[in-house]
Amino acid sequence: MALNPDRFLDDLHRLRSFGASGVDKGVVRPAFSAVDIAARRWLASRMNEAGLKTHLDPIGNLFGLNGEKSLLIGSHSDSQPEGGWLDGALGVVAGLEIARAAKETGGPPVSVVNFQDEEGRFGILTGSDVWTGQISLAKADMLTDTDGVLLGAARSRMSGRAREFLPHDMFTGFIEMHIEQGPGMDVSGDQIGVVSDIVGIRETRIKITGRQNHAGTTPMALRQDAFQALSDFNQRINQRFAEVANPATVWTLGHAELSPNASSVVPGTARFSLQWRDGDPARLDAMETIMWEVAAEIIRDRNVKVQLGEVGGIEPSAMDPRLKSALRDAAEDLAPGKWLDLPSGALHDAANVSRVMPTAMLFVPSIGGISHAFDEDTKEADLVKGLEVLAQAAFSL
Amino acid sequence: MALNPDRFLDDLHRLRSFGASGVDKGVVRPAFSAVDIAARRWLASRMNEAGLKTHLDPIGNLFGLNGEKSLLIGSHSDSQPEGGWLDGALGVVAGLEIARAAKETGGPPVSVVNFQDEEGRFGILTGSDVWTGQISLAKADMLTDTDGVLLGAARSRMSGRAREFLPHDMFTGFIEMHIEQGPGMDVSGDQIGVVSDIVGIRETRIKITGRQNHAGTTPMALRQDAFQALSDFNQRINQRFAEVANPATVWTLGHAELSPNASSVVPGTARFSLQWRDGDPARLDAMETIMWEVAAEIIRDRNVKVQLGEVGGIEPSAMDPRLKSALRDAAEDLAPGKWLDLPSGALHDAANVSRVMPTAMLFVPSIGGISHAFDEDTKEADLVKGLEVLAQAAFSL
Repeated sequence: MALNPDRFLDDLHRLRSFGASGVDKGVVRPAFSAVDIAARRWLASRMNEAGLKTHLDPIGNLFGLNGEKSLLIGSHSDSQPEGGWLDGALGVVAGLEIARAAKETGGPPVSVVNFQDEEGRFGILTGSDVWTGQISLAKADMLTDTDGVLLGAARSRMSGRAREFLPHDMFTGFIEMHIEQGPGMDVSGDQIGVVSDIVGIRETRIKITGRQNHAGTTPMALRQDAFQALSDFNQRINQRFAEVANPATVWTLGHAELSPNASSVVPGTARFSLQWRDGDPARLDAMETIMWEVAAEIIRDRNVKVQLGEVGGIEPSAMDPRLKSALRDAAEDLAPGKWLDLPSGALHDAANVSRVMPTAMLFVPSIGGISHAFDEDTKEADLVKGLEVLAQAAFSL
Repeated sequence: MALNPDRFLDDLHRLRSFGASGVDKGVVRPAFSAVDIAARRWLASRMNEAGLKTHLDPIGNLFGLNGEKSLLIGSHSDSQPEGGWLDGALGVVAGLEIARAAKETGGPPVSVVNFQDEEGRFGILTGSDVWTGQISLAKADMLTDTDGVLLGAARSRMSGRAREFLPHDMFTGFIEMHIEQGPGMDVSGDQIGVVSDIVGIRETRIKITGRQNHAGTTPMALRQDAFQALSDFNQRINQRFAEVANPATVWTLGHAELSPNASSVVPGTARFSLQWRDGDPARLDAMETIMWEVAAEIIRDRNVKVQLGEVGGIEPSAMDPRLKSALRDAAEDLAPGKWLDLPSGALHDAANVSRVMPTAMLFVPSIGGISHAFDEDTKEADLVKGLEVLAQAAFSL
């Protein structure tokens, strides 16, 4: 193994120059924007220089291939509208460096992938969604961004170079390296996180209907106050969810609207959303049951109507035991006592790829837990440690 | 005393025909609108027919005078944008009937008043505000309605007929009859409420600043969730206010806004208002102190910033003991066991008039507690009972 950490860091900083925000190490590189396409061309040239065979598929996923059967490593190089330099980019450049080092030293064949539109300008994880068959290309083409631009029109800018979708069985497995995007490892002091699973998400919209009334003439005991019912619902959910949660379980009431939303009027309705995430489908189900039970309690105790919308979401993604084991062994070897198993609370391309081949992820810390912001960052020593652990795991397989 | 209940009810229904909404007994008769001015002209003609001398003051308050020293009875005939037939109108027509009956039977001199813009098209209780010197006419002229119309321009439609402001010492006192506008008496089955005082109002706007974060990657224990801090603040306020409240004390969190208000983002800020009402200034102060204490607890326990705006409001208005006593005696005589003392949770012209002369109020029930709505109503038997109690009290003074 002849990893070159300086070359790896240089490539990361070069990639950052495509769409650099001018603020901290931030980047503005949305999927299919001019700088996104330029960045992908540059990455293709780096793949070619490394002796990899580049391949662009119809949805814009860029591969750097080493032979007919290989381990795939990568992530995505598109960014949030106001993003950081590492989210996605880290996994692509790590894949490039490991594939390059493997080529140079006659190591096992490693290919690299750079998925398109992971950040959801059009859909959500769009490039890996289409490649793994979660949605069809025809359906994806009808997705629009917030300005109304069709994905089908946007991808036509790259379509002259595009070829077919690659078969999944070209690859023995997929490993994605990513920043944690949360504060967990920054707080615990760990350098490497081996992802146990990618959490599932459940979410619903709830409407509480009480009775709108005069805030001066309606006695407290006779009120049917939709905000008070919401606050009570929230407190009960906190208590009951905590009884079934593990330390990685999260839930959020992030959106709420009162009507008529005036200081002198007892609120007649409250609309809000509740979202919960966990790696275990059974726990997601248990939390959904609790939500229904609490809604029934609120109807009974508060004399209000509670309407729950459809519960949507996505299922958790299990990571492959053999790949996880290789990552754990490498972490214990290179960062003894400074690594941990942890679930991914955020979605990643690995969630899609896990449906079609053995998949694993490793995390490096995010300073202050900050991501999707210009000041997203990670210590260079941690970036290099992540690269080394991933390479050792890949070479051991 | 020769009260004529049928004439009283007929006049109430006639007044309703000015701006009738066509829905239930609703009316649309905003201050200084064409139907409001027509209604005031018709009321002036009824006053004249009763032998009262009409007098319009510069802000549009209409008086029907009986001699140089008299008891004043009245309310207002303007309505909410979507109002009922009794709010204000009841007190004016009751005053008209009692003044008329007193004239006819040689009873004590009673005058009637019909204040302008009680419902706050421009200000709040504008007509009685100006007459009692709470604000100057020049300042009132600069008030605008929601369409930007100046009060000064609106009142010019009536100014040809207007004369000077009447001196307060023409009147020995003021009594206002009104619907309760809340459900209290409808629930308790009482027919008459003798108002103990008109509550004071305190209100402030509060901003909680936490930290906006990813709803998937931020562990529960590390969140600084502005909505959770708001919900906690609300629960503590409910508990602490209840310890100092009496049954008539009310408080309301009627307005709240989260930012960024998205289901997948831990809220970074919550802006909301808190309002509380009570007849006792000492209790209003105690509740304000509690609010500051709870804010400090939230800062300490939730690791968020809490900013409290200026605390605004108006002071409670005491009702005159001698007038209250006359109302109580008449209520016990005419509705034995079916009357009660109660505070007014809503503001009324009586609050202003109490600053310049002995003042009292009596309430009749509102069916279902509904007001400021087309379906506002009161049983005719209760309207007549209120008229009789008010007349007996007035004649006894």
